[in-house]
Amino acid sequence: MISDQDIIGKVLYEDADHKFIWLGTEQRYRKGLIQTMQYLIIDRGRGILLDPGGVHLFSRVVAALSRYISIDKIDYIFFSHQDPDVSSGIALWLGVTKAKVYVSKLWTRFLPHFGIVDPERVLGIEDKGGSLSLPSGAELRFVPAHFMHSCGQFNLWDSRAKILFTGDIGAAVFGEGDETVFADDFDQHMKLVEGFHARYIANNAVARKWCGMVERLNPDMIAPQHGAIYRGKSVKQFLAWLSNLRCGTDLVDQIYGS
Amino acid sequence: MISDQDIIGKVLYEDADHKFIWLGTEQRYRKGLIQTMQYLIIDRGRGILLDPGGVHLFSRVVAALSRYISIDKIDYIFFSHQDPDVSSGIALWLGVTKAKVYVSKLWTRFLPHFGIVDPERVLGIEDKGGSLSLPSGAELRFVPAHFMHSCGQFNLWDSRAKILFTGDIGAAVFGEGDETVFADDFDQHMKLVEGFHARYIANNAVARKWCGMVERLNPDMIAPQHGAIYRGKSVKQFLAWLSNLRCGTDLVDQIYGS
Repeated sequence: MISDQDIIGKVLYEDADHKFIWLGTEQRYRKGLIQTMQYLIIDRGRGILLDPGGVHLFSRVVAALSRYISIDKIDYIFFSHQDPDVSSGIALWLGVTKAKVYVSKLWTRFLPHFGIVDPERVLGIEDKGGSLSLPSGAELRFVPAHFMHSCGQFNLWDSRAKILFTGDIGAAVFGEGDETVFADDFDQHMKLVEGFHARYIANNAVARKWCGMVERLNPDMIAPQHGAIYRGKSVKQFLAWLSNLRCGTDLVDQIYGS
Repeated sequence: MISDQDIIGKVLYEDADHKFIWLGTEQRYRKGLIQTMQYLIIDRGRGILLDPGGVHLFSRVVAALSRYISIDKIDYIFFSHQDPDVSSGIALWLGVTKAKVYVSKLWTRFLPHFGIVDPERVLGIEDKGGSLSLPSGAELRFVPAHFMHSCGQFNLWDSRAKILFTGDIGAAVFGEGDETVFADDFDQHMKLVEGFHARYIANNAVARKWCGMVERLNPDMIAPQHGAIYRGKSVKQFLAWLSNLRCGTDLVDQIYGS
């Protein structure tokens, strides 16, 4: 259960110039709908919004972020990949902000199918990644996460906060009322994580490649778009677990049923 | 170039009880937006609509299908996977029809993020597939196509028309004015197909598995959601080509840029 205090959000990192904020969660569990988590980075008063989500979340996310920043100060929106729970609100977000959108170049021609989208405001990230310098001098890096699960997918590395936003990687699906903000009870939490990762991630080869890359970043936190945030020793535990997971096409006969 | 006669659609298979119809294409190429193709199956006067697409296509697809059937006779909508160009119009389609939706069970909790969706009208397909019997006795089969590209993806096999609807598999991206309805010039067409398949499909192992399965179906046509339709000898040529393609995580170091 998440406390009433945390349900409206939590600052995960803060210094004089820079904040990394988790924007809280739904007050009420909705059956049949996967729960999502949004994040906001504020750097010298300018905002970057991460995976703001679909149409029906729009009003909640607008309300949550406006506690921290005026909406006209959102300069960028980052989409980890093309799924409906990540990016289907794009037309609404482009309407209420002047933000530009970063997303894998694999999806720039697909996003306009969500509605009216000005292509000049959508910046396609090349496969190998890239970076964005913020007013304070902090750097955000677009870290490749292709095939984990989406074939065109990025994580966002905040080098100042030492937090890696991972989209669906590390995601958990909670039962009603079981939500926690942090995945501190690692063994317990993995029970909510394993099924999704074994089925959605393309295979162990790419999982291992991704884990090696993330180990070198040495994050203080791994912040996914569903479930709970990894911190402290659960970060390394998660990477060790994932690098040994058989998943996706490793299990192709089982998944195809033949 | 597609003729003016074909731009409004084409019947690909027809007998007294059963039709498989390609619903035509946009009259005007739209820069920055991937073109899509929709299909309609009519069996004894009842309709099944395949990958009807996103919000901005809605009016064109409604107009196209109403040439063949009244919209209240659409009993089912099939979504091959979760991408915006496939399924983001779901709330509109559920509003104007009484249809039920078939989609991989991996996406049933994600689709409501597109807007207001009644979960009772969304039928999740189990990984190994399934089938649907039509009034004439014809059978539609949901054929697994996971990781080609989407990790939860199905093709639709119409056993009467002997047409396999493949979603993104076999898709081509045409230049302006270069569109053709059929991929009869195979070598020329593969130039428009290779880049997409090498980058989006998870790896050769799964491509080879899928090709083996499709060879056993022995389709007369392979009908993708973008590009052109394979018929005659181009069907086998396409399967031979795809089963030898190195793609996705086979090229992981190249795609990740390290």
